[in-house]
Amino acid sequence: MRMRKKKNGAVRLHNCGDLWVQNPQDIKGRWKGVFENDNPIHVEIGCGKGGFITQLAKCNPDVNYIAIEKLIDVLVLAAEKARTFGVTNVRFILGDAALMEEMLENGEIDGLYINFCDPWRKNRHQKRRLTHGVFLDIYKRVLSINASIYFKTDNKNLFEFSLNSFCENGYSLKNITLDLHNSSFEGNIMTEYEKLFSDLGNPIYRLEASCFAKK
Amino acid sequence: MRMRKKKNGAVRLHNCGDLWVQNPQDIKGRWKGVFENDNPIHVEIGCGKGGFITQLAKCNPDVNYIAIEKLIDVLVLAAEKARTFGVTNVRFILGDAALMEEMLENGEIDGLYINFCDPWRKNRHQKRRLTHGVFLDIYKRVLSINASIYFKTDNKNLFEFSLNSFCENGYSLKNITLDLHNSSFEGNIMTEYEKLFSDLGNPIYRLEASCFAKK
Repeated sequence: MRMRKKKNGAVRLHNCGDLWVQNPQDIKGRWKGVFENDNPIHVEIGCGKGGFITQLAKCNPDVNYIAIEKLIDVLVLAAEKARTFGVTNVRFILGDAALMEEMLENGEIDGLYINFCDPWRKNRHQKRRLTHGVFLDIYKRVLSINASIYFKTDNKNLFEFSLNSFCENGYSLKNITLDLHNSSFEGNIMTEYEKLFSDLGNPIYRLEASCFAKK
Repeated sequence: MRMRKKKNGAVRLHNCGDLWVQNPQDIKGRWKGVFENDNPIHVEIGCGKGGFITQLAKCNPDVNYIAIEKLIDVLVLAAEKARTFGVTNVRFILGDAALMEEMLENGEIDGLYINFCDPWRKNRHQKRRLTHGVFLDIYKRVLSINASIYFKTDNKNLFEFSLNSFCENGYSLKNITLDLHNSSFEGNIMTEYEKLFSDLGNPIYRLEASCFAKK
């Protein structure tokens, strides 16, 4: 997604107050303290403009959410959206999924959302896909036992790759669907990207994965 | 598939000599004796007109094959095809997958092929699908440890159902493809039905499943 560069990204993030966590590595192992409760913590990698995480957080006040995004200009929009909607159980981090372990302790999170991540179409780039074994190993460590990963994409090849990758890396799968919007799945929250692509008639693929062999 | 009723089905099967096993329940636990060697035994459920199993058996002389088909008029064609091609490492059974255990001992087979089985589209008929948990439990018993199931279909809903069913029932999956004919998979042998449907541009779905939790 291309967008015009935002002016004063850092200033605007500052204006979002506590919703933006500037130095997440300082919080590693102490996230429950940030939220000041014992609720489970779920993470979204690549939150984009924040439509999904904001709605999810509003629907689930008994869950805390951390939204990670590596583009500051996008993160600004996400944090501002959460502020506008008065959501208090979400925090925003400017960061990279590959470095999650710098900000999250082993077993510290109880759920992980990966929505419409970059498919990295070329085979030589497959290590960059967020469902590559390199990432699945990281998730295994930061996820608590029996925690789930919730993965959606409109890219058939990425979904096929991901099915195999999860299976090869000791995850068990459930609620697999090859056409989410024509399935019996209830309670789906659409991302901005998902609305755009499903309006074109593209099927949306989804799965849930749990790691039964912890790292 | 509708076809004109064959005259003298039983007589024609008799003419296929040893290729047709008339009383498979008498052979239970002694299939290696039928083939007179110690080669692994693979089974195809619903062999149709036998194009797949005949070619597979020709390509793999070190494997023995048992082809099960519940329609005598179709089984006749399959057995006659194998006879015409001079294949000796395959046997044909008139029977039903639900009754496999009457003819196969626990752990007696080393591979199982399910190709383009009836999708049983109505939800109330899902127990009849050959990848329903009821069948997956039967397969677990007759398959040896680490044996694989090779499943192909052109029906997206059946494939989705099957992915979930295998996962729910303690199978591990690999080599999942959502478009077999445009994948890197090598050595695919097409069934008659597969040729017909892939010519129409329909994608073919395929997976391999192994049971890591034996019954």
